[in-house]
Amino acid sequence: MGSSSIIQSSIQGPNALEKLQHLLKPELALINQLIIEQLQNRVALIPQLAGHIIGAGGKRLRPMLTLACSHLCGYQGQRHLSLAACVEFIHTATLLHDDVVDDSKLRRGRSTANSLWGNQASVLVGDFLFSRSFQLMVKDGSLDVLRILSSAAATIAEGEVLQLLNIHDLGTTKASYLEVIQSKTAALFAAACEIGGVIAGKEEAETKALQNYGLNLGILFQLIDDVLDYSPDRSEHLGKITGDDFREGKLTMPVILALQKASPAENKFWQRTMAGNRQKTEDLQKAIQLLHQHQCLANTLILARDYATKARNALSIFKESAWKTILNDLIGYCLARPGMEG
Amino acid sequence: MGSSSIIQSSIQGPNALEKLQHLLKPELALINQLIIEQLQNRVALIPQLAGHIIGAGGKRLRPMLTLACSHLCGYQGQRHLSLAACVEFIHTATLLHDDVVDDSKLRRGRSTANSLWGNQASVLVGDFLFSRSFQLMVKDGSLDVLRILSSAAATIAEGEVLQLLNIHDLGTTKASYLEVIQSKTAALFAAACEIGGVIAGKEEAETKALQNYGLNLGILFQLIDDVLDYSPDRSEHLGKITGDDFREGKLTMPVILALQKASPAENKFWQRTMAGNRQKTEDLQKAIQLLHQHQCLANTLILARDYATKARNALSIFKESAWKTILNDLIGYCLARPGMEG
Repeated sequence: MGSSSIIQSSIQGPNALEKLQHLLKPELALINQLIIEQLQNRVALIPQLAGHIIGAGGKRLRPMLTLACSHLCGYQGQRHLSLAACVEFIHTATLLHDDVVDDSKLRRGRSTANSLWGNQASVLVGDFLFSRSFQLMVKDGSLDVLRILSSAAATIAEGEVLQLLNIHDLGTTKASYLEVIQSKTAALFAAACEIGGVIAGKEEAETKALQNYGLNLGILFQLIDDVLDYSPDRSEHLGKITGDDFREGKLTMPVILALQKASPAENKFWQRTMAGNRQKTEDLQKAIQLLHQHQCLANTLILARDYATKARNALSIFKESAWKTILNDLIGYCLARPGMEG
Repeated sequence: MGSSSIIQSSIQGPNALEKLQHLLKPELALINQLIIEQLQNRVALIPQLAGHIIGAGGKRLRPMLTLACSHLCGYQGQRHLSLAACVEFIHTATLLHDDVVDDSKLRRGRSTANSLWGNQASVLVGDFLFSRSFQLMVKDGSLDVLRILSSAAATIAEGEVLQLLNIHDLGTTKASYLEVIQSKTAALFAAACEIGGVIAGKEEAETKALQNYGLNLGILFQLIDDVLDYSPDRSEHLGKITGDDFREGKLTMPVILALQKASPAENKFWQRTMAGNRQKTEDLQKAIQLLHQHQCLANTLILARDYATKARNALSIFKESAWKTILNDLIGYCLARPGMEG
């Protein structure tokens, strides 16, 4: 595609995500079509349930990373489309299984699949999407891509198990938490970017750089997600109840930082609310107040900025181009994004 | 391996499964070692939970099919070992997710993983095993094998969703039920057999024949499983509470046959117990009595024998050999197996 002229003409878009969505609009339309085709099934509940979550206003951030990284590397073929769909399928499968794990009722402002169709159907349709994703990769035929995405899938599962073990555990360290989000969130960002370079036939220096970009972008994305979960107006954008992490006793970076600075009385508060999970209505406000008092949200943002720098540095080996600009802008967008999920 | 002499010397084993286990003992030991290696993980719960179910006395029937079919085709290499482990991983992942779906408390006489570690961990470790299986296949490097097993995995998920939809549905037809078991059970048997031929470099005639053998073996295996679930002494062998299918309102072949012959009063009984799921303690005995009265268990066995014939016919294109004999004997074993699971 004559990408640079399209980029020039669309530079007015209000933020990097919207610019990217605009630029990739024709390709995203093809991917949506492919997703619908791939979900067609003799078992009607499969397209119904999967369509509910895939169509639920996700921003297609991960598949867009595959597309954009392939364009950055000058890729001219059509393989990026089905592989971007694979990435979205894996992401969706993990969302379905996550909602079962978290027993969530709302996602992106809509009822979750598990609350509508039960945990069983969500587990099984997640399995289906996961398998379908591998079928699509096999059809594509690259063992490198299969290696990257199967390894990412295993890492995601490891990260989710680790997160499960850390729930209610006030001893969760910063390092352990970073390991969780690197696995559960950033691994798929990294893989989505890397395969863009792989299909363009790039050498290890480039594919490794893309992997690095995605990994660091994913980490900062999750750190911002953690901050947003304690941001009071988030539910207006997202429909998701603010303070989900708090209610679930899920220790994220802001609380880990708060624990480092906690007075004995504050420690008792966190013990009762996060470890013991005996919460009163007013506790969330108290928690948010403590996070502000110790600048834990601000410090999580500062930490996120470190990963932004790493992501930017990773892109430095690529020569200047419109796609490089937009991938760089995307870092800034993720740092300052409104309450949305990818 | 000098297989025919080993077979000759082990022909005294009491049944085909034990013969096969004896013959394949060194290979099964290598596979167990490989499984343990592949489960090693920074997240200790993964080997712990997965080890609980993989080590729980499963008969390794599916991986043995891969081994035996590869030997039938004269395979001489080592690839069958890791691919048999892949098959076991996929099987184990589906068991973990099944137990979540069924909310089972016992499997093979031991507490299920979900009852010990919670549904969440079972879902996630299942995902891990599934991903690890694909990683192992990628390492093996055959896109044909990847195609066969990813397609089987998708079919299994479809079958499980279909089964979920049929629960409590007295309108479930024989055809719909056969579709369920062909998908949820037989697809993996078929794939396990087919890849044995694929790695031996056999042509489509042979790989298709093996697939057919596995498919029909799997169908009859599940039909027998359904009969065993209504057999009063099953729990002594298996520890699983007899009548699970009945209690869960899961319509299997015996009940589908009983419904075809039900008097209006009997129809009311099945409506109340299976569709409405309002069961009293004595209902299971009444159900078993009805199944006997209408010869539904016997007729399910007769149906299973049709699939045994198909499985036997599928093997006919292979020249006589000790491996062919044992694969044929395995059909008879599955038809008359004591209360055990593969």
